[in-house]
Amino acid sequence: MTTIKVHGSPFSTATMRVTATLYEKQLEFEFVYINLKNGEHKKEPFISLHPFGQVPAFEDGDLKLFESRAITQYINHEYADKGTKLTSTDSKKKAIIGVWSEVESQHYDQVASKLVTEFGIKPLFGKPTDPKVVEENEGKLDSILDVYEKRLSESKYLGGECFTLVDLHHLPSLHYLMKSQSKKMFESRPHVSAWVADITARPAWSKVLAMIPN
Amino acid sequence: MTTIKVHGSPFSTATMRVTATLYEKQLEFEFVYINLKNGEHKKEPFISLHPFGQVPAFEDGDLKLFESRAITQYINHEYADKGTKLTSTDSKKKAIIGVWSEVESQHYDQVASKLVTEFGIKPLFGKPTDPKVVEENEGKLDSILDVYEKRLSESKYLGGECFTLVDLHHLPSLHYLMKSQSKKMFESRPHVSAWVADITARPAWSKVLAMIPN
Repeated sequence: MTTIKVHGSPFSTATMRVTATLYEKQLEFEFVYINLKNGEHKKEPFISLHPFGQVPAFEDGDLKLFESRAITQYINHEYADKGTKLTSTDSKKKAIIGVWSEVESQHYDQVASKLVTEFGIKPLFGKPTDPKVVEENEGKLDSILDVYEKRLSESKYLGGECFTLVDLHHLPSLHYLMKSQSKKMFESRPHVSAWVADITARPAWSKVLAMIPN
Repeated sequence: MTTIKVHGSPFSTATMRVTATLYEKQLEFEFVYINLKNGEHKKEPFISLHPFGQVPAFEDGDLKLFESRAITQYINHEYADKGTKLTSTDSKKKAIIGVWSEVESQHYDQVASKLVTEFGIKPLFGKPTDPKVVEENEGKLDSILDVYEKRLSESKYLGGECFTLVDLHHLPSLHYLMKSQSKKMFESRPHVSAWVADITARPAWSKVLAMIPN
């Protein structure tokens, strides 16, 4: 019997980050569906698992965690010998992976998450897209993707020559953005475009997408 | 001779995060001053060290890194046997430290950095503070510090019973905020207030403050 529980929503990018990691590591888990439309994430019992009331929350036996990137790091460290190796044990390679992990979290996601909200989340709640927010964040994304294009012309993946958690952390927002007008910004850059095609074709990722209700 | 170089500004919170870690680890380093007022961080040679043109950048021999939290993680891992131990090797304790590291980066710093800009950085450049930005971010900080107060009533430090990188990462913004009107928000919460007094009294931190020109 699995000891791992993920409390989240299949629509949530942060939840998808965690389930993608679990599938890459070939780990079984129980998925506890949190209804965001009903505000379940802001009430007990969920709020006791996540003091900021955001999905996902995670349990592995008596260990309770929140914050998606802390959860994926834990899974990767604790289950190092299972499934795909998602980091390096070499100190210098690990440091470079660390740099690009921070780029994802501090630069890319700050912008991508706002575009995901406009194009992917607001329509789910019947709200209109704000063109001003889109314009501002597409401008920022443009500069970030220039840096990505240069990086990906030098190494196959963002962290180096192997697929790691850095690339994986981008998958959920790519799912929404590749269905939006922002798609052209990825497609117009050959190395970024090849990288998107490569990482979105992973079998573990198709299992995450299969969890999303039609 | 030291192999470590930090390219940054003594006024920059991200730079201070790195120098605080180096002092805690009792490592020697060369400090290369980058003049932000002259826009040195947006030009060569600095821009080759940091594609987003932000301080600090870091060198250790032939290894070149950017992004302050990736740098502190590298220092802590590479020089594990030097100075203060700033993490845990126990998997579960390390996971909890990871959660609160993400809270600092994804919640606290998103708000604190905006207040630091208003109270600490804009005055350096002769710009006025925006009361609307202050009000919005003090509101968010209030909720975050409620979570901190609860956490710090349960453990002495954010990551657990020992001082770790999580606490250290807060020091630079605290330096600015404790000289601003936001100080009262920290002082009104007894556990947060005791934690601030404890971590700002560390000898390594006083060395970082001594680098700031009068």
